[in-house]
Amino acid sequence: MTKGSRKRELILQSALDFTSKFGLESLSIGELAKTVGMSKSGLFGHFKSKETLQIMVLDYAANDFINQVIIPATKKPRGLARLDNMMDNWRHWTQKKMQGGCPFVSSIVEFDDRPGKIRDHVLKLQTEMIGSFERALLLSKEEGEIHADSDIKQVAFEIYGTMISFHIYSRLLKNKASEEMFLVSYQKIIAGIKTDVMEAL
Amino acid sequence: MTKGSRKRELILQSALDFTSKFGLESLSIGELAKTVGMSKSGLFGHFKSKETLQIMVLDYAANDFINQVIIPATKKPRGLARLDNMMDNWRHWTQKKMQGGCPFVSSIVEFDDRPGKIRDHVLKLQTEMIGSFERALLLSKEEGEIHADSDIKQVAFEIYGTMISFHIYSRLLKNKASEEMFLVSYQKIIAGIKTDVMEAL
Repeated sequence: MTKGSRKRELILQSALDFTSKFGLESLSIGELAKTVGMSKSGLFGHFKSKETLQIMVLDYAANDFINQVIIPATKKPRGLARLDNMMDNWRHWTQKKMQGGCPFVSSIVEFDDRPGKIRDHVLKLQTEMIGSFERALLLSKEEGEIHADSDIKQVAFEIYGTMISFHIYSRLLKNKASEEMFLVSYQKIIAGIKTDVMEAL
Repeated sequence: MTKGSRKRELILQSALDFTSKFGLESLSIGELAKTVGMSKSGLFGHFKSKETLQIMVLDYAANDFINQVIIPATKKPRGLARLDNMMDNWRHWTQKKMQGGCPFVSSIVEFDDRPGKIRDHVLKLQTEMIGSFERALLLSKEEGEIHADSDIKQVAFEIYGTMISFHIYSRLLKNKASEEMFLVSYQKIIAGIKTDVMEAL
């Protein structure tokens, strides 16, 4: 890493920590400049506008998600093993790295009804994430691990719901059983579409 | 309604519309005063502090939820009919009345990691809402409509997840199948715990 790209990394990581705690809209170039020890104009030189910074923070978080959650799963065998692994990696990612809360969940809530570039970008990133789950399910179908008539978009909707439920039960409700409930829920969803061992032979 | 309580109702409804769109933290007494045509000091006279106003807005939304979603369901027969009715009423409530988005979902995301009175209040209201679903499930168990060993807290977690998934799929993703996916998901969850007609006899 060059000095420039290290600086950029530091700025984006600080901006992500801030977003994770207070939301994307509260992200302030002034506050951020103080945190990273730069002048406000120096920071503007890097990002040009608050909107560009917001989009880059989303991309920074999305890249981290891809590196920590999606890519490791592609090393597992094609099929349900990949989806299981994504769910494990995601829990680890959200609990260990995003202690202020998932930056995507807060951006969704902030921008779902505010048309513009940020909303479009949040939508694109969420569609891609759900798309990763759908692709893993499609491979599971091709491998004969789930029923040929399984409705993949429906199942991805259900998995997405159980992820958000886990997020709220663990963060707001501080429910100690939230991880166990997530796992039971996920396993139920998969059990509903899984082929029997005998069928698969 | 007296003139005073009509005024109060108008203020709270405006504050709720604002919260629903921009979140509870962005709620500003100055902006609200403009909207309802009062002086800032006059509005302070009603609410004393921003925090009091925020809590009253949450209560105002919670009362509306209880009146529109929970109370009508209590007129249905004890058991699953009540839970089904809550789900129908809730979809209607969130789509028709909370066009800027659910004020609770945004408050959860804003305040889940900010200790204080607002967080405590959001937590209390969400716990009560989930409690309403759990009570409907408990009655369903007492009526023999669901299996005696059904894990009610687990099922409430799953229903909650599918509600939030519907919220995001319809509002952010503008997915036209979101309502159908919600219904399929809810029916699947219930089918997993429902006793057979023969068993129930």
